[in-house]
Amino acid sequence: MNKSQKRIREVFKNNNFQYFSPLSQFTRLVEETGELARILNHLYGDKPKKQSEAKQDLEDELGDVYFTLVCLANSTGVDLDKGLEKSVSKLITRDKNRYDK
Amino acid sequence: MNKSQKRIREVFKNNNFQYFSPLSQFTRLVEETGELARILNHLYGDKPKKQSEAKQDLEDELGDVYFTLVCLANSTGVDLDKGLEKSVSKLITRDKNRYDK
Amino acid sequence: MNKSQKRIREVFKNNNFQYFSPLSQFTRLVEETGELARILNHLYGDKPKKQSEAKQDLEDELGDVYFTLVCLANSTGVDLDKGLEKSVSKLITRDKNRYDK
Amino acid sequence: MNKSQKRIREVFKNNNFQYFSPLSQFTRLVEETGELARILNHLYGDKPKKQSEAKQDLEDELGDVYFTLVCLANSTGVDLDKGLEKSVSKLITRDKNRYDK
Repeated sequence: MNKSQKRIREVFKNNNFQYFSPLSQFTRLVEETGELARILNHLYGDKPKKQSEAKQDLEDELGDVYFTLVCLANSTGVDLDKGLEKSVSKLITRDKNRYDK
Repeated sequence: MNKSQKRIREVFKNNNFQYFSPLSQFTRLVEETGELARILNHLYGDKPKKQSEAKQDLEDELGDVYFTLVCLANSTGVDLDKGLEKSVSKLITRDKNRYDK
Repeated sequence: MNKSQKRIREVFKNNNFQYFSPLSQFTRLVEETGELARILNHLYGDKPKKQSEAKQDLEDELGDVYFTLVCLANSTGVDLDKGLEKSVSKLITRDKNRYDK
Repeated sequence: MNKSQKRIREVFKNNNFQYFSPLSQFTRLVEETGELARILNHLYGDKPKKQSEAKQDLEDELGDVYFTLVCLANSTGVDLDKGLEKSVSKLITRDKNRYDK
């Protein structure tokens, strides 16, 4: 099982936390994706930069998206590593020219 | 560094792939998040179930979201494991009662 | 009330349709946002263009996002025109320099 | 042309505003969709309610999503009303049983 998923499973167990229902957890994922959008637009898009936002914040926002994704995978019983390998398999066959230089 | 990130870095190197620009990679992430939305709504929401969609597909869609997230982290030089630990730290302090049973 | 909202309310009434629950309708909105992401990345991003996708398709995808947004507003009793005017008010005061040339 | 789109076109003209590029404006749309996710999860999901958040806020967030969608449609030359009618046509033919009671 994916190492990060084990880590979060342990955190939830130790703190007596309970996962949200799938649609509610997915809505959390979208909330965090929105915060990632904001920082990416400040760093790389047309939105004027704010002094208070730096590339350091990107680590936080990517971490929050990752956390909510791991929660969703844990609560639905999915191994992210298995899913990732399927994604890689598609990439190097069907979509081989998608990321060509 | 996060193990999945190393894996994808290797895949990209071996296949001579190039990461998208951050906003374009983020748009890919949202595309995959949309496909995850579709399957979640079939499995857990009000959208009528289709015979052709099963819980097995959820692994694929979560894997695709994870893959696009890893690509974005790799191309912007962020370690997802560090971000995840920050997220956990917030969780067990500031948001301690968010996931209470 | 927003004219498009009236239109969809009428369509639902005439066809004896029922709105999804808010989280399920929101998940539909994210699904359609993902399809919009795909076409935008083909038209304006790093994803290689497909012959089969043209700017015409953008009208379809923006329409689908608009439709799911209208459904969500209708089912939760919100007038999109009132919300839009609040958004405009913020824009020309607080965020006045956000869209400056 | 959609009435809200005319309204925003006028606001941008009167204030000498300029639309973002499509991917940057889409990223803004996702940011606002994330804020909508947050309030929906407070109102209808598993996230604990906050006193400071009421249904009134939903109007603001739906308005912000609508505003960013209108900006994207305006900057890419799409009429949302035409897109909506296509969406309705699909609904009452192909997806006729999707919203059945």
